[in-house]
Amino acid sequence: MDAIEELAIQPCTSSLYLRPFRLTYRQNGTKKFWDFMRTHDSVSVLIFNTSRQCFVVVKQFRPAVYMCEVERQHPQLFQNRDKESFSRLEDPLPAVVGVTYELCAGIVDKPHLSLEEIACEEILEECGYRVPVTNLKKITSYRSGVGVTGSRQTLFYAEVTDQMRTSEGGGQPEEGELIEVVEIPLEDSMKFAYDETLPKTMGVIFSFTWFQNNIAPKLPKK
Amino acid sequence: MDAIEELAIQPCTSSLYLRPFRLTYRQNGTKKFWDFMRTHDSVSVLIFNTSRQCFVVVKQFRPAVYMCEVERQHPQLFQNRDKESFSRLEDPLPAVVGVTYELCAGIVDKPHLSLEEIACEEILEECGYRVPVTNLKKITSYRSGVGVTGSRQTLFYAEVTDQMRTSEGGGQPEEGELIEVVEIPLEDSMKFAYDETLPKTMGVIFSFTWFQNNIAPKLPKK
Repeated sequence: MDAIEELAIQPCTSSLYLRPFRLTYRQNGTKKFWDFMRTHDSVSVLIFNTSRQCFVVVKQFRPAVYMCEVERQHPQLFQNRDKESFSRLEDPLPAVVGVTYELCAGIVDKPHLSLEEIACEEILEECGYRVPVTNLKKITSYRSGVGVTGSRQTLFYAEVTDQMRTSEGGGQPEEGELIEVVEIPLEDSMKFAYDETLPKTMGVIFSFTWFQNNIAPKLPKK
Repeated sequence: MDAIEELAIQPCTSSLYLRPFRLTYRQNGTKKFWDFMRTHDSVSVLIFNTSRQCFVVVKQFRPAVYMCEVERQHPQLFQNRDKESFSRLEDPLPAVVGVTYELCAGIVDKPHLSLEEIACEEILEECGYRVPVTNLKKITSYRSGVGVTGSRQTLFYAEVTDQMRTSEGGGQPEEGELIEVVEIPLEDSMKFAYDETLPKTMGVIFSFTWFQNNIAPKLPKK
């Protein structure tokens, strides 16, 4: 498990990652505004390893998730703080409360690459499998964070074999990524999906369910 | 369809709705920081009208989704702008590109109410059905926006009848809400879920699928 230490928070007045904008408009005659954030579209991939009949997902420490849990315990933490204050978290919660299970995923920030090519890069970087683009099947796309970002996410399905594994994965440490690759056996997957004690994204739950409905019936019988 | 006019955007330097923070920490010995936003947890509800065998969802103009489409057409829009600039959108796209189908949903901001009570309030406000709390069944919970907000969403299922409809719904106009209630017939629902020309959240797709797996088999035969 990751060691997470020396936690401190401060209001963030300028960020390379969070780019807030305000849209003003008139809707059916009424003047309104809405604050939103620019983000990139993204891709995510349900990876199924046919050699060992398991899903391949990633697990990582998510500061935003962690801070939700911290606020649940210390509701006053984010209240009434001025722009300059900076507070060290005393007696921090264990890092595990901020660790989530997610599909392999990445942002769409390379205009010269197709969504499928970006997805294949992420599969290699995060999970260590070298997958041909033609192995990818699009499941569907949808809007995420409609209140704040509204970006489009496209979900793919990829089958991999042990032979395709060329590295350990784990993300790009030089970009601060620290990703653990986790295998969920097919027979445990629906129990895993609905176990709320294991923090996860809806993408995991939905895609496992999609697999049960669309792929599992066609698997060769053991 | 909504008339959306006089669109203009500006960088947002201070917002009541977007509250950015920066967490600094040391992970396995390496000093890091992560910018995130505080938001509320939320509830969403898959509503099934048994009187007419249809799902009840909501449809609304989402500025963040709209601006994603605007940027897709005008990639330079958000680039290199200084803090004070304010630009009017010439030849805006039709409002429909920002209209999404979503589950009835709301934020968890009333500490004295249970998640089920908040969900029932939203069903009444947005969709016009008065539903007893005991009619709600929890489907599951998960983490949303793990990169930016990490908040917990809890998904419920509620069966309603025409007799429970006491108003038109439509949200709270005094809070700027302008919500259209839409019925999706059960027999069209999976086609709807996977039709990517109709912008929607993953919650719609997942919950329709959940219904097919868990509720549809038990429905009385016609």
